Amino acid sequence: MSTVSIQRQVNALHADRYAARADSFHPSPVRAVFEVSMLPGMISLAGGNPDLSLLPLGEVAEFAREIVAERGLEALQYGSGAGTEGLTNTICEVMAAEGTTAVPENILVTSGSQMALELIATMFCDPGDVVLAEGPTYVGAIGTFEGLQAEISHIALDSDGLIPEQLEQRIRELRAAGKTIKLLYTIPNFNNPAGVSLSLERRQQIVDICRAEGIAIVEDNPYGLLSFSGQYLPSLHGLDPENVFYLGSFSKIFSPGVRVGWLVAPVEVRNRLQLAAEATTICPSVLSQLLVERYITEFDWKAQIRASSELYRERAAASMAALGRYMPVGTTWTVPEGGFFTWVTLPAGHTTDDLLQPAIDNGVVFVPGSAFYADGSGANNFRIAFSFESAERLTEGIRRLGKALTSR
Amino acid sequence: MSTVSIQRQVNALHADRYAARADSFHPSPVRAVFEVSMLPGMISLAGGNPDLSLLPLGEVAEFAREIVAERGLEALQYGSGAGTEGLTNTICEVMAAEGTTAVPENILVTSGSQMALELIATMFCDPGDVVLAEGPTYVGAIGTFEGLQAEISHIALDSDGLIPEQLEQRIRELRAAGKTIKLLYTIPNFNNPAGVSLSLERRQQIVDICRAEGIAIVEDNPYGLLSFSGQYLPSLHGLDPENVFYLGSFSKIFSPGVRVGWLVAPVEVRNRLQLAAEATTICPSVLSQLLVERYITEFDWKAQIRASSELYRERAAASMAALGRYMPVGTTWTVPEGGFFTWVTLPAGHTTDDLLQPAIDNGVVFVPGSAFYADGSGANNFRIAFSFESAERLTEGIRRLGKALTSR
Repeated sequence: MSTVSIQRQVNALHADRYAARADSFHPSPVRAVFEVSMLPGMISLAGGNPDLSLLPLGEVAEFAREIVAERGLEALQYGSGAGTEGLTNTICEVMAAEGTTAVPENILVTSGSQMALELIATMFCDPGDVVLAEGPTYVGAIGTFEGLQAEISHIALDSDGLIPEQLEQRIRELRAAGKTIKLLYTIPNFNNPAGVSLSLERRQQIVDICRAEGIAIVEDNPYGLLSFSGQYLPSLHGLDPENVFYLGSFSKIFSPGVRVGWLVAPVEVRNRLQLAAEATTICPSVLSQLLVERYITEFDWKAQIRASSELYRERAAASMAALGRYMPVGTTWTVPEGGFFTWVTLPAGHTTDDLLQPAIDNGVVFVPGSAFYADGSGANNFRIAFSFESAERLTEGIRRLGKALTSR
Repeated sequence: MSTVSIQRQVNALHADRYAARADSFHPSPVRAVFEVSMLPGMISLAGGNPDLSLLPLGEVAEFAREIVAERGLEALQYGSGAGTEGLTNTICEVMAAEGTTAVPENILVTSGSQMALELIATMFCDPGDVVLAEGPTYVGAIGTFEGLQAEISHIALDSDGLIPEQLEQRIRELRAAGKTIKLLYTIPNFNNPAGVSLSLERRQQIVDICRAEGIAIVEDNPYGLLSFSGQYLPSLHGLDPENVFYLGSFSKIFSPGVRVGWLVAPVEVRNRLQLAAEATTICPSVLSQLLVERYITEFDWKAQIRASSELYRERAAASMAALGRYMPVGTTWTVPEGGFFTWVTLPAGHTTDDLLQPAIDNGVVFVPGSAFYADGSGANNFRIAFSFESAERLTEGIRRLGKALTSR
């Protein structure tokens, strides 16, 4: 069964029983093309899958075997709702590598950082509350906040990230309209999908504005370690640990298939979130946590990240070269310094939603720009994920996309 | 940090920002004693942990190694939000072993069956909606429904399970009071915590009542295969697949540490639940799913279940013998024919909440009866989980409990 085929079929038996929230869950445009990207011959510019080919699979396999053979009664049993003590310490080490200090009592391990986001949204958002977010922003965040019937208000980005003046102005406008603003959701490093990063100067400005305005920040940082230059900017969390909730993930630097992420928050908030987490999953997978801990403590994970970042840098370069060659005159794109994505703007008049089917017919799939906005913006944008396909296939995919554009 | 110590500390910064739901999440009394049960010398009658000592750890370890070594690029990558095709087929086979027919298009794999319950509750329960449940019922279900601000109304049990006449009467009373009843949540096999099972005759009656009254049923069945006699009663889902949502779990028959459960629902409902699931965890752990599939397809899991059930049967017998020896005159308990639990009723006047600390001081921990009710009932009840400790330790634990009772 294809995920694309998910429909709201009529079912008279349950039709009147659904909660008010039930219609707020929409198919993710990224998940919707997941099955399409699996078709033979299809080149995917769509999903933000990491390239796992640089992982030491033989060693990870041996780690998995040893964990079950030697600690199976622990690995296969229920664990603490907070996460294992070992992994929590490991997370502090991973955050320190990027320059952020965290201590175990502020950390909650979750079944992926999407769940951490969902927990924070659940704990803070009532229906009708406003969440500020970059425009464009992460599809999955839109899904989570919309699922809670919160309203997303997008703040414009430029090549230095979220624009502080726009943030201040929007806060004024929303408050004048009587709205309650609960959170600023932001991806400051190598933004998904925009590819840009928040400048150092703006980090302090954004943190100061939100502190002054009484708005908590959710800093989502799955890509921060994947810096092409190996340089890292300070986290927003580091600038204001009390007011910035931090989301981290092993999905982009190790494995999404183990589903291990985490959040960092003030102790009271973290403890409330643990209660909500236990109501959702009881505890994170102990096996997964032991495997991640083992990988980070026993393998040279920093060297793997350097190698992966170099691979992604080359692919980003190939993608941008292909964009220059195959896209219409007047097309622009962001120049990422890390992460997985570049954000493409076609000349006015193009509609990327209409381009999707012709592109698939030409053997390439991507995610149209409108997916990254809650308000229908992004009509002439699309995202390129350069993380998974080879440079050659990215080039060929972008060539096919150019062909689909001109053949319509 | 101890889970017991989770407090609602004052934090002025976030105090006014929480959602209306935020105070609805309470510490689970079972999770709260999790850390206590780990103390050296402590005997735990508390947690429903399976005994994993009969698992073939060497073989499971080898399965884990092979999966990562041979299919690592799949196992460690994102997967479908629906679950892997292989595991979905495996789930049909596991359900068939208990006599229930299911097909893959109705199945959604989740990160444990707690998450499946949370998804259903999210999709159906508005604040103030009523959920009917056995009294006593599963602590985690109380937490999930309360977290959504739904009201739980308990229906009395006897040794044949939920009493149909009480169900009918409660529906009439609640409707007369203007309440909206959304779901009946039930654990028909070896109920947690009551230990009793719903009789064959009553299964049809309950299904008929709920169909006629327009109330969907959530059938939670983590223990069904752990029948001491090897006999299985038909599932409610099998009696009315359109109106009964089924929850299954590998936690009690294989491993809770991999966090793999599932739900079965009509296609339209299942598809909606998948959208909510993707907003929470994107997808279940692929590594965990491949490991469970491998275990079920390559190991004689039915023989392992027969051996485990025999172990649990012996422990149940030892527990009941010790109850007869060490509990006050007038104490009664249920006689389980499978699963993990027996439910103890002390003579009137005893308060098991007050017994907890003296019991811990005497080296035994249990969960007081009030934990299993949303309305403060169960004052002179407690649950014994006989699944994890040896028969000798269960006997000693119940002796210590008797000592704590008399020494107060």
